[in-house]
Amino acid sequence: MLNFEKGFTLDLDLKTGLSKKVDTKKRYLSDLRGMFADDAALEAMIKENDDVIYEYHTLPVPEHEGDLAFGSSIVYPGNVAGEYFMTKGHFHTILGTAEVYYCMNGQGVMLCESPEGDVKAFELSPGTVVYVPKRYAHRSINTGNTPLHTFYVYRADAGHDYGTIEEKGFRKLYVEKDGTPTLVENPKWAE
Amino acid sequence: MLNFEKGFTLDLDLKTGLSKKVDTKKRYLSDLRGMFADDAALEAMIKENDDVIYEYHTLPVPEHEGDLAFGSSIVYPGNVAGEYFMTKGHFHTILGTAEVYYCMNGQGVMLCESPEGDVKAFELSPGTVVYVPKRYAHRSINTGNTPLHTFYVYRADAGHDYGTIEEKGFRKLYVEKDGTPTLVENPKWAE
Repeated sequence: MLNFEKGFTLDLDLKTGLSKKVDTKKRYLSDLRGMFADDAALEAMIKENDDVIYEYHTLPVPEHEGDLAFGSSIVYPGNVAGEYFMTKGHFHTILGTAEVYYCMNGQGVMLCESPEGDVKAFELSPGTVVYVPKRYAHRSINTGNTPLHTFYVYRADAGHDYGTIEEKGFRKLYVEKDGTPTLVENPKWAE
Repeated sequence: MLNFEKGFTLDLDLKTGLSKKVDTKKRYLSDLRGMFADDAALEAMIKENDDVIYEYHTLPVPEHEGDLAFGSSIVYPGNVAGEYFMTKGHFHTILGTAEVYYCMNGQGVMLCESPEGDVKAFELSPGTVVYVPKRYAHRSINTGNTPLHTFYVYRADAGHDYGTIEEKGFRKLYVEKDGTPTLVENPKWAE
């Protein structure tokens, strides 16, 4: 059905991001253990109900430099002790490859960080395209009250390096302070 | 403003495809001389009013294999002696590079054709993604009554080869027959 050599169409609902033909990969609160500042708060939430925190498409695109991977990313609203729900975030394995995100619904931030520590926080709202530059780790953060839904495209062979972020984290976090999304230092970040 | 090395955001209106920050490149009826089957009918239309037939963004992205070009494409409704308004269409100069189109508004067809003559016609409606495979020329055709608006992404160094299509055309055309979009042979097509 998804014939990357001959072309195809795929339904991605403009409102929900979901497809009737292909399912999403779901990430649960428990998949993000260690990634929020307050481990105890996250653990308590998992015990209560291990909710889906975000979901996205992983289509079987060949890892060829001429192909493109694409899909929807949907981050649900919520927070862990004031730290907004977010994706794990990743570098590309081929570090020098960019990614385009087009925000369809919701409110949030694309947090970007280079290995050298340059941090950029790009605000997302419907109709905003974010260009994630080559060499920057990136993470979607939902700072609103509805699902944050983006459409993404990247080079199919770019690859995902989650390990670096899992080990070291991002240098900065997004937390709610007096009702306002605020960028603060990550107390756990390790050089 | 559009800093491809450090990242940026760009507004692309989800309804119109247009941005308040960057303008589009406009193609007029006269730019498509020779590309419709009925040259006389096109000439008469140009004489009446040389309308914009389609427009799209051409952002100053570096032609680097790690970067991505993106933007909106808007094809207006209409026809030339029954042949629907369409883009010129092109191969990529680096033939082995794909392109993703996400239909936001309107009704149409993405006509794809390989150098060997494999023809694929993918129907477009809001919420449909078309995967244009490596090696296929492609052209957007508006078969509806409202603007056909897609969001596209391709590798920034892919390049555009318009010459092959300008010289030879596509093997097939989309024309209105008894009110229905119909794929027919292109009488002008030359091997």
